[in-house]
Amino acid sequence: MTLIEQMTQLARQAREASRELARLTPDRKNRCLLAMADALEANEDQLRLGNAIDLDWGAKTGLSAPMLDRLKLDEKRIAGMARGLREVAALPDPVGRLLEERVRPNGLRLRKVTVPIGVVAIIYESRPNVTADAAGLCFKSGNATILRGGKEALNSNQLIATILVNAAARALPEFPRHAIQVVPTADREAIPALLSLTQYVDLCMPRGGEGLIRAVAECSKVPVIKHYKGVCHVFVDREADLGMAGDIVMNAKCQRPAVCNAMETLLVDRPVAAAFLPALARRMAEKNVEFRADVEAHSILSAAPEAAGFKLRKAAEQDFFTEYNDYVVNIRVVDGLRQAVDHIARYGSAHSDAIVTRNEATAQQFLSEVDSAAVYWNVSTRFTDGGEFGMGAEIGISTDKIGARGPMGLEELTSYKWLGIGQGQLRS
Amino acid sequence: MTLIEQMTQLARQAREASRELARLTPDRKNRCLLAMADALEANEDQLRLGNAIDLDWGAKTGLSAPMLDRLKLDEKRIAGMARGLREVAALPDPVGRLLEERVRPNGLRLRKVTVPIGVVAIIYESRPNVTADAAGLCFKSGNATILRGGKEALNSNQLIATILVNAAARALPEFPRHAIQVVPTADREAIPALLSLTQYVDLCMPRGGEGLIRAVAECSKVPVIKHYKGVCHVFVDREADLGMAGDIVMNAKCQRPAVCNAMETLLVDRPVAAAFLPALARRMAEKNVEFRADVEAHSILSAAPEAAGFKLRKAAEQDFFTEYNDYVVNIRVVDGLRQAVDHIARYGSAHSDAIVTRNEATAQQFLSEVDSAAVYWNVSTRFTDGGEFGMGAEIGISTDKIGARGPMGLEELTSYKWLGIGQGQLRS
Repeated sequence: MTLIEQMTQLARQAREASRELARLTPDRKNRCLLAMADALEANEDQLRLGNAIDLDWGAKTGLSAPMLDRLKLDEKRIAGMARGLREVAALPDPVGRLLEERVRPNGLRLRKVTVPIGVVAIIYESRPNVTADAAGLCFKSGNATILRGGKEALNSNQLIATILVNAAARALPEFPRHAIQVVPTADREAIPALLSLTQYVDLCMPRGGEGLIRAVAECSKVPVIKHYKGVCHVFVDREADLGMAGDIVMNAKCQRPAVCNAMETLLVDRPVAAAFLPALARRMAEKNVEFRADVEAHSILSAAPEAAGFKLRKAAEQDFFTEYNDYVVNIRVVDGLRQAVDHIARYGSAHSDAIVTRNEATAQQFLSEVDSAAVYWNVSTRFTDGGEFGMGAEIGISTDKIGARGPMGLEELTSYKWLGIGQGQLRS
Repeated sequence: MTLIEQMTQLARQAREASRELARLTPDRKNRCLLAMADALEANEDQLRLGNAIDLDWGAKTGLSAPMLDRLKLDEKRIAGMARGLREVAALPDPVGRLLEERVRPNGLRLRKVTVPIGVVAIIYESRPNVTADAAGLCFKSGNATILRGGKEALNSNQLIATILVNAAARALPEFPRHAIQVVPTADREAIPALLSLTQYVDLCMPRGGEGLIRAVAECSKVPVIKHYKGVCHVFVDREADLGMAGDIVMNAKCQRPAVCNAMETLLVDRPVAAAFLPALARRMAEKNVEFRADVEAHSILSAAPEAAGFKLRKAAEQDFFTEYNDYVVNIRVVDGLRQAVDHIARYGSAHSDAIVTRNEATAQQFLSEVDSAAVYWNVSTRFTDGGEFGMGAEIGISTDKIGARGPMGLEELTSYKWLGIGQGQLRS
């Protein structure tokens, strides 16, 4: 069987499974999810043994220590996968939700209701726990999943999927076994082959670094929902409460710098720059943050009494496009809201951007004019997250304009259809 | 300037215009739309002269009579464009609508509000009126449009766009002139060049025959919303009111066979096939409809007393995949709901499908299991239409699962963003 035949078979099976999945009641889906969670815990030894094969091979082929750490399945991570599945089981079912209802003058009743998307391909990197997390969210939302993790985790991912499928099939005889499938080859060409099958695959969600996501978006014929990177901004307006602003900026940058909703660039309104920046820099210097400052911010910071203790350099233009995911921050002094909004439109990634101000009109203008997935007023950018948004769980974050935008939970894994209920209406 | 440079400039200008557009109030947008409508009527002579150049060239290069007819702008069609723009002006503004609001336990208020998509490329065939219709709907929903019609209509399309832009700029000085642009070249390579610019173009909507749509979907790197074809079904269940069923089937097939929501295949439940088909065939024969029947339907119809008057032949499997857009109907006898649903999943195009039955449980099962953009119970499939759905106007119909599905009006031309309003919340 050629690669494309193999992928076609996989995708066709997923499509068939998705039709059966769409018929399962919420109770039956939840019964499967709970059985899956139990089975992961019951098979911990088997999982660790299977994972050890990947770890050995990874060590032999020279994977870095952090890569090996990400690849590892230990008791805590296995328990984490099981807990995730139980949490998903406890969430409301997102399918069949009435979004809108209208009765036309001719008596035709139109109901817009949520339906599963169908077949979802998830392309991700080394963490095998994504296999269970993504499969659980897709299953609960009635979607068949085709999972493709890192090649270094293939054995672990296949084992997890087998445990999930076997557990669900034992719990529910009509469970469609092809609802959860792992691409059974590490061949890199499997991805473009799979993502050419628009007749069977409805959506692709890549998760990982910008390189992976760009490669997937470039080759896919299937719709892709994604975010490339998170170049997030906080704008400290001239009418900001500077105490609040300092706390928000510290939180947005330093609470967890490695994530996509962390701040990369601080924009400070000129009238408050001299009052705000030195004190903030002192707090950030304690966290060993490096500053990449524009000319004006650089001049303010280098004039500060503590300047000798700052890791301070001049920002290059490219820095403002960069997601550091690290203790590095760009700082730019801007001349009011308009310049801040223009900066964000030019350099940002439409992920999460915040304004700190006491002035409601200024805030409303920022909220209206910044076109990002999440726009905040007097809040840290770090809140862009399915859990923080009350979605219960999250499969990813989208900065796209077609389909879901922002954190994606169960509802964001659905589409909709229109039901038209009549009494013999004819078009004239 | 190379073609890709030309398309990049066009798309970048559209992106910049889209930011200004997003700031226009509903009143200002409506003032522009009304001015555009007036200007089309005021410039009727100029439009007819400009259109005559396209018509002359078309006649010289051998366009068919129906093609020339579609290309023609006469008084009635110009008035139609103007009326369309006025209707759009009268519709509610789709931008800034609150879709959802929640307050999190930490006091963070989240508001999910509609926003324009951004830059929308519309690729269409010969009718120049699409230029005004699509530009008007996109403008009202805050989107910049890049229009690419048939090469035979280039002159007419450019003239329409110029009239619209000049009228809007006179009515509103801050109108961004690049909000409505026509691709200024007939070069076929302009389409893939334009649709490679994912940094500037947010969505592409192709409108036309399946060939055009497949070509666009194949080359586009930008998300595409589309329907390839409309292979629509009516299933007459064993518990149908056969009088109602006959009327619905006649309406779905014969009221306007050339459109995508017309029925192509009739599925009849076995227990009522003998009672239903001969009488229906008599009515259809009066409209000169050709029947392509499966073995069982063929045998019923050929045994009817009026069989000599029927245009009857046996259906080939390929027929069930075919959108005739003509007075031709496939007829198949099925064994109950399950077979009808399976037939629709296999041969249908997920556009519009109907069941006729008195049994509510059967109807609910059909509505639940048929995964099409519009699924009907005791209604003609012909109702899948923006006007009939109460959207006021329609830019197209989608059978996709990502983004809008079914008729697309103004609301379907929006995306959303999340606004987070807080009092200094930090993530811990």
